[in-house]
Amino acid sequence: MSNTANTPPAAFNGGAAYVKGRFVPMEEAVLPVTDWGFTRSDVVYDVVHVTNGCFFRLQDHLDRFEWAMARRRLRPAEDRAAIEAVLHRCVALSGLRDAYVNMTCSRGRPRVHGSRRPADCDNHLIAYAVPWIDVIPKQVQERGAHLWIAGLPRVPDASVDPRVKNYQWSDLTTGLLEAHDHDFDTAILCDADGYVTEGPGFNVFIVRDGRVLTPDRGSLHGITRKTALEICSELGIEAAVTAIPRTWLEEADEVFTTTTAGGIMPVSRVAGRILGNDRPGPISMKIRDIYWRWHEDGRHATPVRPLEPVAS
Amino acid sequence: MSNTANTPPAAFNGGAAYVKGRFVPMEEAVLPVTDWGFTRSDVVYDVVHVTNGCFFRLQDHLDRFEWAMARRRLRPAEDRAAIEAVLHRCVALSGLRDAYVNMTCSRGRPRVHGSRRPADCDNHLIAYAVPWIDVIPKQVQERGAHLWIAGLPRVPDASVDPRVKNYQWSDLTTGLLEAHDHDFDTAILCDADGYVTEGPGFNVFIVRDGRVLTPDRGSLHGITRKTALEICSELGIEAAVTAIPRTWLEEADEVFTTTTAGGIMPVSRVAGRILGNDRPGPISMKIRDIYWRWHEDGRHATPVRPLEPVAS
Repeated sequence: MSNTANTPPAAFNGGAAYVKGRFVPMEEAVLPVTDWGFTRSDVVYDVVHVTNGCFFRLQDHLDRFEWAMARRRLRPAEDRAAIEAVLHRCVALSGLRDAYVNMTCSRGRPRVHGSRRPADCDNHLIAYAVPWIDVIPKQVQERGAHLWIAGLPRVPDASVDPRVKNYQWSDLTTGLLEAHDHDFDTAILCDADGYVTEGPGFNVFIVRDGRVLTPDRGSLHGITRKTALEICSELGIEAAVTAIPRTWLEEADEVFTTTTAGGIMPVSRVAGRILGNDRPGPISMKIRDIYWRWHEDGRHATPVRPLEPVAS
Repeated sequence: MSNTANTPPAAFNGGAAYVKGRFVPMEEAVLPVTDWGFTRSDVVYDVVHVTNGCFFRLQDHLDRFEWAMARRRLRPAEDRAAIEAVLHRCVALSGLRDAYVNMTCSRGRPRVHGSRRPADCDNHLIAYAVPWIDVIPKQVQERGAHLWIAGLPRVPDASVDPRVKNYQWSDLTTGLLEAHDHDFDTAILCDADGYVTEGPGFNVFIVRDGRVLTPDRGSLHGITRKTALEICSELGIEAAVTAIPRTWLEEADEVFTTTTAGGIMPVSRVAGRILGNDRPGPISMKIRDIYWRWHEDGRHATPVRPLEPVAS
């Protein structure tokens, strides 16, 4: 069924956002430079993807976003149902069938000039749907990503909880710059004790002696990480969330990374070492195949609601 | 001398900004929600103050800003002379005699959709002049601030260099929330080894056995901190930058904090302890007096350039 009322304005083509309670084209999705979400990075966010017109694990993402907001004492005007409706409408307005969908809650600005109290701020929701982004480009995924092990330690969990999805990427960005300096695609950081954590925007897994392992520390509890663990369970592959010393990463049989914006992304080189003849490993590829099969068979799928004929 | 060409438009009253190469009123000073300065907190900044129509230590702030940008490989279109001219013009447009003047360089956005490479981004300068802000309100400064010692460790220097002035305030904000929960004004953080670092937006000093001490780690090299050390030297007070165990802070004879947005701010309570009869200490007050005398006598002063009659 289609009618003019249900057709989004052309301005939204390719991306639609929600800021200050209004739906706007992406170029109008802006933030004051004095917003504490910017000047203090006082913000939590989440990203859910849409594939072939359906959100994947939307409720899991909303659960995590709500939890993260509560942890940072952020409360936007919109409740969960309203946030969910906003995400649906951003995607519908954008006209995208495959999308990267961001939800962010920012501290905002104090109601009184000069106040330094977070409690004096009006928290606000930002959301947007833009074309799908691969954290690691598709052609790199095909050959397997080259993963640099960064020289600096990941910010410890005790200082900044990595389970609260945040924009404080300085250590990750430093690792990424290092990786690019060495002609690697991206980086992984270890903590100060030498245990593997995560990379800029993704979790990491290793295959060691037939077991699939992912770090128990210094990491976001990724939804794609969770899916990978569930796939292992379905395949009868032993999997565990555990402490992973750096040497296990360097000596792994296979390595893959996971993220909402990319899925299961195999790695073919770690630092100086070439894995499995410089190709993505078989277990990684099997998990990746099933990950996308789960999208096709409608598991965890929430169809994007069609546009209602209301003013944008 | 005054003429209409030199009178700023009313829209700039009380605040003027520079974004995307243009001077705009504060309400137009915005950032795309997809700018990496926001989504990765990939940004460095500095703040200089204007008192009675003069910048204080402007060259020191520009030195530090240039150094921080280089450390993060950020390069805006404007060179140092242009940045300096932008700051002058923001203040002149605002019409403010006392101002908080911010300069920020953001990573910007990748020129190619989906790129994850910092090198693919167009870095850009943001600047603004707004009315003077006291990090600790004036009336609190008069009675002495109440300083909470936060329960979480400051992010370590090895992960995020605190000398590169940045917006990654999560640990500081957590400390601030804790402080407010306990009816304290603000917080100080120690590092994981139990040494004193800094608070949300300020350095800290203690007076111990007649010596003035400030932390050698986990801290911004503040310009006001530098000024306080110079004042000690002029007064013949022994001062040092050194490791300060938490117990020294708890047992200090006096405590004060320093910041561009507030100057020298005495503390009268640290955690459960009341210092010097619950009043600002004499050495702290002497340093504060001289700090403001140095403003009056024109030391380190750069007069704000009057508006040139060009289009804003």
